[in-house]
Amino acid sequence: MFLHNKRLQYTVRVSEPNPALASMLLEQFGGPDGELAAAMRYFTQGLAEDDPGRKDMLLDIATEELSHLEVIGSIVAMLNKGAKAAMSEGALEEAELYMSLNAGGDSHTQSILYGGGPALTNSSGVPWTAAYVDSRGDPTCDLRSNIAAESRAKIVYERLINITDDPGIKDALGFLMTREIAHQKSFEKALYSIKDNFPPGKLPGLEPYANLYVNTSQGEGDATGPWNTGEQWERIDEVEANLPLDGGDGQASVKLPSVDMKRSAAMMARLQSDPNANPTTGADLGAAPGAGKTTDEDLGGAKDMAQAKKMSDAKS
Amino acid sequence: MFLHNKRLQYTVRVSEPNPALASMLLEQFGGPDGELAAAMRYFTQGLAEDDPGRKDMLLDIATEELSHLEVIGSIVAMLNKGAKAAMSEGALEEAELYMSLNAGGDSHTQSILYGGGPALTNSSGVPWTAAYVDSRGDPTCDLRSNIAAESRAKIVYERLINITDDPGIKDALGFLMTREIAHQKSFEKALYSIKDNFPPGKLPGLEPYANLYVNTSQGEGDATGPWNTGEQWERIDEVEANLPLDGGDGQASVKLPSVDMKRSAAMMARLQSDPNANPTTGADLGAAPGAGKTTDEDLGGAKDMAQAKKMSDAKS
Amino acid sequence: MFLHNKRLQYTVRVSEPNPALASMLLEQFGGPDGELAAAMRYFTQGLAEDDPGRKDMLLDIATEELSHLEVIGSIVAMLNKGAKAAMSEGALEEAELYMSLNAGGDSHTQSILYGGGPALTNSSGVPWTAAYVDSRGDPTCDLRSNIAAESRAKIVYERLINITDDPGIKDALGFLMTREIAHQKSFEKALYSIKDNFPPGKLPGLEPYANLYVNTSQGEGDATGPWNTGEQWERIDEVEANLPLDGGDGQASVKLPSVDMKRSAAMMARLQSDPNANPTTGADLGAAPGAGKTTDEDLGGAKDMAQAKKMSDAKS
Amino acid sequence: MFLHNKRLQYTVRVSEPNPALASMLLEQFGGPDGELAAAMRYFTQGLAEDDPGRKDMLLDIATEELSHLEVIGSIVAMLNKGAKAAMSEGALEEAELYMSLNAGGDSHTQSILYGGGPALTNSSGVPWTAAYVDSRGDPTCDLRSNIAAESRAKIVYERLINITDDPGIKDALGFLMTREIAHQKSFEKALYSIKDNFPPGKLPGLEPYANLYVNTSQGEGDATGPWNTGEQWERIDEVEANLPLDGGDGQASVKLPSVDMKRSAAMMARLQSDPNANPTTGADLGAAPGAGKTTDEDLGGAKDMAQAKKMSDAKS
Amino acid sequence: MFLHNKRLQYTVRVSEPNPALASMLLEQFGGPDGELAAAMRYFTQGLAEDDPGRKDMLLDIATEELSHLEVIGSIVAMLNKGAKAAMSEGALEEAELYMSLNAGGDSHTQSILYGGGPALTNSSGVPWTAAYVDSRGDPTCDLRSNIAAESRAKIVYERLINITDDPGIKDALGFLMTREIAHQKSFEKALYSIKDNFPPGKLPGLEPYANLYVNTSQGEGDATGPWNTGEQWERIDEVEANLPLDGGDGQASVKLPSVDMKRSAAMMARLQSDPNANPTTGADLGAAPGAGKTTDEDLGGAKDMAQAKKMSDAKS
Amino acid sequence: MFLHNKRLQYTVRVSEPNPALASMLLEQFGGPDGELAAAMRYFTQGLAEDDPGRKDMLLDIATEELSHLEVIGSIVAMLNKGAKAAMSEGALEEAELYMSLNAGGDSHTQSILYGGGPALTNSSGVPWTAAYVDSRGDPTCDLRSNIAAESRAKIVYERLINITDDPGIKDALGFLMTREIAHQKSFEKALYSIKDNFPPGKLPGLEPYANLYVNTSQGEGDATGPWNTGEQWERIDEVEANLPLDGGDGQASVKLPSVDMKRSAAMMARLQSDPNANPTTGADLGAAPGAGKTTDEDLGGAKDMAQAKKMSDAKS
Repeated sequence: MFLHNKRLQYTVRVSEPNPALASMLLEQFGGPDGELAAAMRYFTQGLAEDDPGRKDMLLDIATEELSHLEVIGSIVAMLNKGAKAAMSEGALEEAELYMSLNAGGDSHTQSILYGGGPALTNSSGVPWTAAYVDSRGDPTCDLRSNIAAESRAKIVYERLINITDDPGIKDALGFLMTREIAHQKSFEKALYSIKDNFPPGKLPGLEPYANLYVNTSQGEGDATGPWNTGEQWERIDEVEANLPLDGGDGQASVKLPSVDMKRSAAMMARLQSDPNANPTTGADLGAAPGAGKTTDEDLGGAKDMAQAKKMSDAKS
Repeated sequence: MFLHNKRLQYTVRVSEPNPALASMLLEQFGGPDGELAAAMRYFTQGLAEDDPGRKDMLLDIATEELSHLEVIGSIVAMLNKGAKAAMSEGALEEAELYMSLNAGGDSHTQSILYGGGPALTNSSGVPWTAAYVDSRGDPTCDLRSNIAAESRAKIVYERLINITDDPGIKDALGFLMTREIAHQKSFEKALYSIKDNFPPGKLPGLEPYANLYVNTSQGEGDATGPWNTGEQWERIDEVEANLPLDGGDGQASVKLPSVDMKRSAAMMARLQSDPNANPTTGADLGAAPGAGKTTDEDLGGAKDMAQAKKMSDAKS
Repeated sequence: MFLHNKRLQYTVRVSEPNPALASMLLEQFGGPDGELAAAMRYFTQGLAEDDPGRKDMLLDIATEELSHLEVIGSIVAMLNKGAKAAMSEGALEEAELYMSLNAGGDSHTQSILYGGGPALTNSSGVPWTAAYVDSRGDPTCDLRSNIAAESRAKIVYERLINITDDPGIKDALGFLMTREIAHQKSFEKALYSIKDNFPPGKLPGLEPYANLYVNTSQGEGDATGPWNTGEQWERIDEVEANLPLDGGDGQASVKLPSVDMKRSAAMMARLQSDPNANPTTGADLGAAPGAGKTTDEDLGGAKDMAQAKKMSDAKS
Repeated sequence: MFLHNKRLQYTVRVSEPNPALASMLLEQFGGPDGELAAAMRYFTQGLAEDDPGRKDMLLDIATEELSHLEVIGSIVAMLNKGAKAAMSEGALEEAELYMSLNAGGDSHTQSILYGGGPALTNSSGVPWTAAYVDSRGDPTCDLRSNIAAESRAKIVYERLINITDDPGIKDALGFLMTREIAHQKSFEKALYSIKDNFPPGKLPGLEPYANLYVNTSQGEGDATGPWNTGEQWERIDEVEANLPLDGGDGQASVKLPSVDMKRSAAMMARLQSDPNANPTTGADLGAAPGAGKTTDEDLGGAKDMAQAKKMSDAKS
Repeated sequence: MFLHNKRLQYTVRVSEPNPALASMLLEQFGGPDGELAAAMRYFTQGLAEDDPGRKDMLLDIATEELSHLEVIGSIVAMLNKGAKAAMSEGALEEAELYMSLNAGGDSHTQSILYGGGPALTNSSGVPWTAAYVDSRGDPTCDLRSNIAAESRAKIVYERLINITDDPGIKDALGFLMTREIAHQKSFEKALYSIKDNFPPGKLPGLEPYANLYVNTSQGEGDATGPWNTGEQWERIDEVEANLPLDGGDGQASVKLPSVDMKRSAAMMARLQSDPNANPTTGADLGAAPGAGKTTDEDLGGAKDMAQAKKMSDAKS
Repeated sequence: MFLHNKRLQYTVRVSEPNPALASMLLEQFGGPDGELAAAMRYFTQGLAEDDPGRKDMLLDIATEELSHLEVIGSIVAMLNKGAKAAMSEGALEEAELYMSLNAGGDSHTQSILYGGGPALTNSSGVPWTAAYVDSRGDPTCDLRSNIAAESRAKIVYERLINITDDPGIKDALGFLMTREIAHQKSFEKALYSIKDNFPPGKLPGLEPYANLYVNTSQGEGDATGPWNTGEQWERIDEVEANLPLDGGDGQASVKLPSVDMKRSAAMMARLQSDPNANPTTGADLGAAPGAGKTTDEDLGGAKDMAQAKKMSDAKS
C-alpha cells in the first residue's frame, strides 16, 4: 500500500511565476520520459515480478518516481500560481489576459483548459499515453528498457536545466536529474546479475544470421566500425545478389484451398487494372484544357508564375 | 534514396490461411516493438546524426527493418488471402462469413475494416503511433533505447514462434528474431565506442544523490542486492525522518507579486470548502431514506443480498 | 513524498489462473474509470489546490487510489501467473499455446505483447490516456467531475463482480467498489461545503437563457418532466420560428479588411462549383455502361442479385 | 432524424479576423469539454435510453449542442476568414505569411494543415477523441457525468470570455456559457427524479468500508472537514498498523496448478537477479575512468562545472 | 527488399538554421498528409495486392515516398542543426536558450524532447498515427483514397512553399509537391483502368435510394446545382413529411426474448426519472440563496457585473 | 441550427439481440469510415465554405449523415438491449454473464465499460478520433477526400451486409450503403463543376517532374500500364545512375553560422563512436560464456533445441 507524507522529497523554491516555462517543464510531468511514465513502467513490472530482489527494487524506485512526479508537478503549480488566480478571478483586462496566454510554449492550453493546474501532457499539450510504457514481462528486456528510459530522462532534465536561470528550479531539477543516474545504475546492476541475459529469452538465434551485417545503405558515406566489421561479423555488401538470404525464391506464397483459389481468381478478374487501357481519368476531366493555372496579377499571380519559373530554372 | 527489389530478404512459405494467427502477428507489423517502430526509430536518428559511422549504421539497419516490415507483412497477407477473397466476393453464406470472423484475436476488424490487408495496428487493433518512437537526439540515450528495443522485439518474436506450428512461418520468424540479436550487438558496439557514455549528456550529477538508494518500499519482502547495497551505495532506510533530502522545509513555494497574492487570496476565499460545515449533499438527496437497495427476487435480488452478506462476512 | 508498504490494502486470494478474466479486469487498471485515472485525477488537482482542507483530502484519496491500482493489478498478475510462465518458458506445444490465447477478451495481446504483466490498457487493449483525466483547476467543476468519476467506477466494479464467481476476487472487488462509494461521499461533502458552488465560476449567466428549455427534438415520444417543464422553466417549442434567439439575422459575419475581401472574392471565383454545369464525373467514367454489377454465379452472384431484389422489395 | 435550418441559434458578429484567438476558441469546438463532446455524450446516451422522459431530454440537448458546435465553429471560421484566403491565394510575401503563422497559440497548424477551416482539435492541436465521452449506460452515473461536463464547459467558456474584448464574440460566448448552466439544471432534475440514485447500481456497498476515511497522506497540512470527520465517518489514522483492512496477510496469492508452479519456478531460476553478485555493468563500461565529464571552456564548459558546483553547494 | 543509396533523390540546400520553420515542415514528415502516411498507405496496399500491375505501381510509389520522407526529414535536420548542437552542448546562457525555444510553432518540444532530430509529429507536436492510413483492401476504394491523399499532400506543400523564402527549401519543396501531382495521375490511370469501378464493391445499391437527394438543410442559402438537381436526381424537399423513407413507423425495435423483456422492464422501473417529481437537486443546494455571484470590486468584480449587464442588454 | 424529429430516416427492425454483431457494426458508428466521421468531415467543411452551392450541399449531407449515425446507433442499441438489461440487473449467474461476454468481437468491452450503449469506437474498441477527418479547407482536395470516404463507407457496409442474415438489419444497412453511393455522386458533380480542379491549388508543378515515373521497385514482377508507360510519361529505370534528379550532389547541407559550426564540431568530438575501438559491451557481459541457452528438458527444452536446429536446417 502507498502512504504519503506531505513533505516533498526535495524542497521547491520558485522565484517567480512563469507559465511558459511551466508548460515546458510538463515534458517531465506528462511527457514520454517524464515521471509518470517512469513510475508506471516500474510499478507494472513490479506487480508481476516474482524475483524477490527485483520486485523490491522496482517498487522502491516506482515509489520514488511518484514522489518525483510530485516534485515536478509542484514546480509547475508554483510557476502557474499567478496565472491560475488571474484566470479564475478574471482579474485582468481581457487584452492583458489574452496577451499573457501568448507568452510561449503551449501555456495557452494549460491556462484555458487546465486552469493552471499541472496537466498530464507533454510540452506540446499531447496527453500522456500508456503507449509510452514498454514493459514486456521479461526482465532481460524490461531492465534494458529501464536503463534506456533513465538515460532519456536524464538528458531531458539536462535540457530543462539549461533553459532556466531560476536557481531554485535549477536546484530541484538537478536533484531529479541525478536520481535518474542513480536509478540507471541500479537497473544495470540488476540486469547483469542475471547470469545469462543475452540474448533475451530462451530461444537461441539461428546461427547463420546472428553475426551477419547487411550493408543495405551504400554510396558516399559508407563506413566501418566495430558494429559492422571485424572478426565477430560476417558481412554482405552485395545485397541484391544475395537475395533472399535463405536460398529460396524470395517470394511470399500460401497454399490456398481450391475454393479460395477460385474466389481469389474471380476477385482478381473483377478488379483488374487493365494494363493495356489508357482511360480518360478524373484528372483529365479536371485539368482545364490549354489553361494551366491562370492567376490574378493583383493577388500574387505574377509572383506565382515567376516562382514556378525560378523553380524550373533552378534545376536546369 | 530508397530502392526496392521485389524479392523478399527471406522467403515466406505459409501452409494455409489463418486470419486469427495473422491478427496476432500484427504485433510485429504495427505494434510497439514491431518493424515499423524499429525502422522509424533508426531512420529518424540517422537523418539527424552527424557521426559518420553511426549515421551509416543507422541507415543500414533502418533499411533492413523496412525489409522486415515487408516480410512480416507478407506473412500476414498470405494468412489473410482466403479471407480477403471471401470478403470481397461475398462468396460465403452470411452465417459462414460471420462465423469466420469469430475465429479469434481481433481478426474481425482486420476483415471488416482492412479487408484482409495487413494493417498498421497491434494485435488488439490499436493503430501504430509515433509515441512508440523514443529517439531523443543524443546517441548515448538513443543507442540504449535501440538496444532495449531490439531486446523487446526479440522476445515478442520468440513468443510468436511459440504459438505457431506452421514450419514456413516459424522459419521466417526465426530469421527475423535472429536479426534483432545481430542488431542489438551492433548498437552495443556503437554505444561502447563512445568513450564517455555514462551518464548521458554533459552535466555531471550532484555528488550526494548519485550513489544514493532510497528504500521507499518496506515491509516483508524488503531485499538487498548489488542494486541497493554495497560500497557503491549510500542507502536511506529511515525515509520519512530524512525528508526532505535537501535539508529545507519540504514545501513548494513561489514568490508571488503582491497583485497575484491578492488575487490568489480572493480565489481561495471565494472557493473555500468550509471545514466546519456539514452540508446536505447530492448523495444525501439521492440515497432513498430507509431504503438501501431494494431488489427484485425474480431478477437476482436474492443473490445480490446474499452476496453482500457473504462479502461482509468474509471480512469479519 | 510517497512511501510504500509491501502489504496490500486488501488481501488478494485468487482461486485459479484465468487470463481472459484478467483482460476484462484491466478495465479498472488501465481503463477510463480505472484506478490510475482516479489517482491521477485527484493527484493533479491536489498539487495545484490552495484550499488546505481539499488539498489534504485530494492527496489522501489519490494515495488510496494508487493503493487500489496495486490491488487490482495484483489480481491481474495472479490470474496471468500461469500464462506468464508458460509463455516465458515456451512450455506448451505450439498449438496449445495458440489455443490458450483464444480464451476470450483481448488476452492474446496481454500474453504476446505484455508477457502476462498487468498492462495499462482497458479491456480492449486500448492504452490509457491522460485524455481521461478531466481536472480543470476549478473546485466546483473538479469536485463534480470526481463525484461522477466515482459513480462510474462503482458501476464498472459492480459489472465485474457480476461476471466472476471466484470468491476471493469477488471479495476484493467488493472492497474496491465500496471505497468508491465512500470517496463519492467525501467529494460531495467538499463540494457542498463551498458556499456558492452553482453555477461554477464567477460570471453569472445571461438572465434570459439560464432558465430556457429548447425543445429541439420533437415527434412521437416528446415528453415532459421537471427537467423541461414547470415554473422554473421557460420553454420554446416553436424552435424554427424563434431563430435566432437573439433577434439578429442568425448569420455569421466578420468585418474583413478590404484586402482580405478582395482575396476572398478571388478565391471564391477561382474555386466556384458552377451550379449550372453538368459535368461528366469520375463516377460517370467508372460506371460500366449498361453493365450494372455483373456477378459470377459460381461465387455467390445469384445470392447477390436476389439480395438486392429482396432489399428493394422490402421497401415497396 | 436530424434537420437543419441555415440560421444559427445565435447570431455571430465578429469584429475582425484573428487566427490566434480562433485557435484558442477551438477548445470548445474540438476540445474535451467542447460542443462535439457534449453532443456525442448525450446522443449516445439517448440512443440506448429506455426511459421516455430522459430519452427525450437527451435528444433535445444533444441536438442543441450540435447547434452550438455550429455557433462556435462559425466564430472560428469568421476569425480565420482572412487567413484562409491569404493562404489559399498565396497572396502575401512569404515572409509576411510566415510571420502571420506565429501570431500565437497553435494557429500555424490551423492554417497549414486545416487551411483555415475549423478543426476538431483542442487549442493545442490535439485531435478530438471519443475517449472524452464517458457514457456508461447507467443513468445515475451518466447524469452525474453530464452535470460535471456542463460545469466544466461553463468554466471554459468563462475563461474564453475573459480573454477576448470583441463584443460580438463575447456576446455569443455568453449565450453558449449560459446554456450550459441551463443544461446542468435539467440533468440535475433528471438525476434527482430517480428515487434511489445513490449509490449507483444495484449492489450495496460492504458495510464496514462505506463510511471509512483512510488518512493516507499525513504530516503538516493534515486537515479535517465534513469529508473525513464527524459522525458519518469512521476514520483510520494509523494506516500501516491496520494493513490490510481485511485482517488477512495483505499478500496476493493464486492457487497454481502444479504444472504452472513448476514452470514458474523454472522461469524464476532462469531469470534470477543474483543478490550476491556484484557484476560489472554497462554503466561501468561507459563511465570514463577518472574522467567525470570533461568540458570545453569555449563551449560553456566552465558554466557547466560552476553549475554543478553551485548545485552541490546549494544542498550542503 | 529495400536498399538505400546515400544520395538523396533531390539535393537539399538550406540557407540558415530556423527551428520554428522546421517545426512547421514537420507537417509533411509526421503529419496526416506527410510522406510517412503516403509511404505506409501504398506499402500496406501493395503487400496485399494481387493485381500485378497495381502491385508494382504501389511498391514503386511507396518506395519513392520513403525517399521523400528522407528529403523532408533532411531539410528539418538542417534547419535544426544549430539548435541541436546548442542544446547538446548547453552552449548558450540559460536565458538565451530559453528565448530560442520561443521562436514559434512547437519548436520548443522539438528541441527539449527530440533534441533537434526530426520527429514523427505534425506541426503541433501530435505524434503520427496509423489512423491516418485509410487502406481498405479494395482497389476501387483505395485508389480513390490515394488520389485524394495526393491532392491533400499537394496543397500542404503549396502552403509550405508560400511561407518560406529560402530558395533551396522552396526548390526542394517544389520538387516534392510536383511528385504528388505525378503520383495522383498514376493512381487516376490505375483506377479508371478497372472496368467497372463505380460503385465500389459487388453489391448494387437499392434502386430507389441511389439517385435521391434529401434537402435536409433549408432556409436562406438553399441552393441548387448538378449535385442535387437535374434529371439524374430525385429530390425530397418535404423531409419531415416523408419520414421514414421506407414507409415504416420510423421506430427502432427488437424482438426480445421474454426473459430479456422482464429484465428490461425491471431496469426501467428501477431507474425511472419520475416525470412528476420536482426534486431538490444538487444545483439547488449549491446556488447561494439570494446571492447570485458576489464579487470583489478590487478584483474585477465591477467589470464582471457590468459585463453581465452588457451581455443582457445586447440581446434586448 | 439543427432540429430533430424522433422518427428515424429508416425504420430499424432487429430480429433478436446479438451483442457480438453489435460490436462489429460499431465500425460504421465510431470507426474511421463510420457516420460520425462522415458527418464531421462535411460539417467542418461546410462551416468554412464560402461557395453557396457547396455550402448548402455539405450541410445537407452532413445533416443526413448525423441521421445515419442515429440509424446505425439504433441498430446497435437494439442488438445490445438484452445484454444491457442483464448487465444492469445482474440477472444471470456470474458464469453465464461471463460466458455471454465471450461471444465474439470486442463485445466484452461494450458490456463492461459502455453498459450496452452504442460507443464511439470501431469494432476493436478503438475510440473515434478526429484524426480520421481529413478536411483541408481546399474544395478540390476536400471533395476528392469526400469521394474517397464515401467509397470506403460503401465497401464497409457491403462487408457488414455480407455477415448478417437478419433481414431487418440487412435492409437498413442496404439503405445506408446506397446513400453513400448517392453522396459520392453529389461530391463528384461538385468537384467537376470547378473548372480547373487539377492539380489542386494555384501553384503549377515543376514541368520536368510532373510527368515522370520513377521505377524504384524492380525485379520479377516489374510491370507496365497506363500509370507508368505511354506518351504521357517520362520514365526512369536507371534510378541510381540518375541520383539526384536535380543534378546536384544529393547531399543535405545548411550554411551554419561559425558559432554553430564550432558547437557542432564539439558535439561530434564529444559523442563520436570511435570506428577503431572494439569495446567490450553490455551484450558481451550478458552472454554466458560457453553457455548458449541451457534449457530444462522437463520444461520443453528439448523442443527448443530441436526447433532451433530445425530452423537452421531449413535454411541450409
